[in-house]
Amino acid sequence: MDRINVCIIGSGNWATTIARNVGRNVANSQHMEPIVYMYVYEEIVDGRKLTEIINTTHINVKYMPDFVLPTNIVAVDDVVKTARDADILIFAIPPTFVNSCCKTLLGKVKPTAHAVSLIKGFERGDDGQIVLISQIIMRQLKIPCSVLVGCNLAHEIANDNFVEGTIGCRDQKYFRLLQDIFKSATFRVVVTDDADCVEICSTLRNVIAFGAGCADGMELNENTKAGIIRRGFLETLQFVDVFYPGCRMATFFEACGISDLVTSCYANRNRKLAEAFVKTGQPLSELEHILIPGHEPLGPVTAELVHIMLEKKGLADKFPLFTVIYKICVGDQPLTRLVETLRFAREDM
Amino acid sequence: MDRINVCIIGSGNWATTIARNVGRNVANSQHMEPIVYMYVYEEIVDGRKLTEIINTTHINVKYMPDFVLPTNIVAVDDVVKTARDADILIFAIPPTFVNSCCKTLLGKVKPTAHAVSLIKGFERGDDGQIVLISQIIMRQLKIPCSVLVGCNLAHEIANDNFVEGTIGCRDQKYFRLLQDIFKSATFRVVVTDDADCVEICSTLRNVIAFGAGCADGMELNENTKAGIIRRGFLETLQFVDVFYPGCRMATFFEACGISDLVTSCYANRNRKLAEAFVKTGQPLSELEHILIPGHEPLGPVTAELVHIMLEKKGLADKFPLFTVIYKICVGDQPLTRLVETLRFAREDM
Repeated sequence: MDRINVCIIGSGNWATTIARNVGRNVANSQHMEPIVYMYVYEEIVDGRKLTEIINTTHINVKYMPDFVLPTNIVAVDDVVKTARDADILIFAIPPTFVNSCCKTLLGKVKPTAHAVSLIKGFERGDDGQIVLISQIIMRQLKIPCSVLVGCNLAHEIANDNFVEGTIGCRDQKYFRLLQDIFKSATFRVVVTDDADCVEICSTLRNVIAFGAGCADGMELNENTKAGIIRRGFLETLQFVDVFYPGCRMATFFEACGISDLVTSCYANRNRKLAEAFVKTGQPLSELEHILIPGHEPLGPVTAELVHIMLEKKGLADKFPLFTVIYKICVGDQPLTRLVETLRFAREDM
Repeated sequence: MDRINVCIIGSGNWATTIARNVGRNVANSQHMEPIVYMYVYEEIVDGRKLTEIINTTHINVKYMPDFVLPTNIVAVDDVVKTARDADILIFAIPPTFVNSCCKTLLGKVKPTAHAVSLIKGFERGDDGQIVLISQIIMRQLKIPCSVLVGCNLAHEIANDNFVEGTIGCRDQKYFRLLQDIFKSATFRVVVTDDADCVEICSTLRNVIAFGAGCADGMELNENTKAGIIRRGFLETLQFVDVFYPGCRMATFFEACGISDLVTSCYANRNRKLAEAFVKTGQPLSELEHILIPGHEPLGPVTAELVHIMLEKKGLADKFPLFTVIYKICVGDQPLTRLVETLRFAREDM
């Protein structure tokens, strides 16, 4: 049987972090091809091509200068060359590049290939709905697509701190393989087939983290923040029940659920952005370039799409926290409404 | 119909905090007796009786000097006089005094009275099991006993920050009344009849907070702490399922569940104690007197009783987080086992 060929599409901070695990894991497996191609969007850094730098120094000087990559990670500047022989395609590019990347790859990947999206975020559907990245990849490339989430602090994985992640994969025969590709001694990976739930949980938590950041910006207390986390968790359960019926409660207790939510509300970019938004009074559009350059702040845009989806079903009133966070983002409600919402939200949902 | 008479047994920080809400609420109700007796263990403070100071200055100078009590809170140095005419007995005394207090009150309270325990902690049963405080009060006084939990930072309530609490009450006809007695504009109170679950959740979170504090002491990362919270939440569900069968999942999503757990893991005395235990290497018995004078550190003792209960059923292996926290407390396992446990804990429970 042929060895399984794994490639990585993307070379940012998160792609490079996971490449360290993937490189080590394939090197230690008799079932996997020992070389992993990594697609790098070519840039010139200090007069040299980034791919050349990575392939000679094994350091991604642009996006992760403090960590060395395994030597079996090979940077390639052509996405088709990267992916054409791969059995497992790991996508770790910004969400805005997914469509064009898939167009380039269409018909050029193995029909038996399996994709794994590590992409945070989603696409905006024509009807203003959230379209999951895994759905776009599946639809465009006509191959199955799993997701890996639950590990939103790349530097903590890179530093070999203990981190938990969740893989959502609809096909049980890939469970062990995907775990073997991503895991490490300090990166615990659990696989579940409840894939949509894994991905949407990971998306909604950015809205809640934005709310938690607003509370921090107002210097509210621990109990208020816990109230936001609790209410956000309840509205996540409820949102999933309406828009992704059939998800399982147990999935919310995986890393993609409760852990991701807690870490996001204490240490996430959306939290930080919201805190600054409240403290400085500056518009979000200005702050995001200063505070999180190169990253789209997913909280506000997710809040907007969630709101559109809820409005279409006439359900905004049933999701008071998601609704008030959206309205605070766009300036339709004062910040004081956040705590008011917690006070008056109905318990029975 | 007679007005409902409410009394408070206890005058510590927590009793005094809640007395401010209770005093205001009864004063504004046509159904409640406007005077609330508060039992104060008599002490001499600066040459004057504490009850006299409270009744003249309306300040509990000993336990809450920065806040003024409503004038309808009347300090009484006799627990029988405090309680004998009361329809609602609010208990807010240290857990070690519950038995003797109930002995004094036996036969002296109205047979139709209803107790509410605000007591954090539990009693150690003869067989080494946790005995819930509400069970002791019910058994000894032969009246029903509800519980109010989920608000472990008294100063946040006192400062009128937003806080959520949960009341566990088996009798639906008391739901509205209890809510009306305790709530305020900033203290949201939800009542559920799943009373044992409310009380045991609030107890177990001290074990998890101790684990979170160990992680802080080792300067581990956000993801590790989230892993402890997640695993702790799962083991709480599982513990309740074994020892208090029939509890409802929804209760874990009330303030007594997820909120109390998160606040405890970020801002609780057990967390702080554990952090110092790790950083200084000093014995717990020495640290607790320095760090949390006047308070029993519930984390270690709860961990011990939980461990005894699990061992008796041969289930310690199924609760690896609770077990390792106990073993770290007593020095049977090194701290490094905490992360090891998270790494290797089985997901299927």
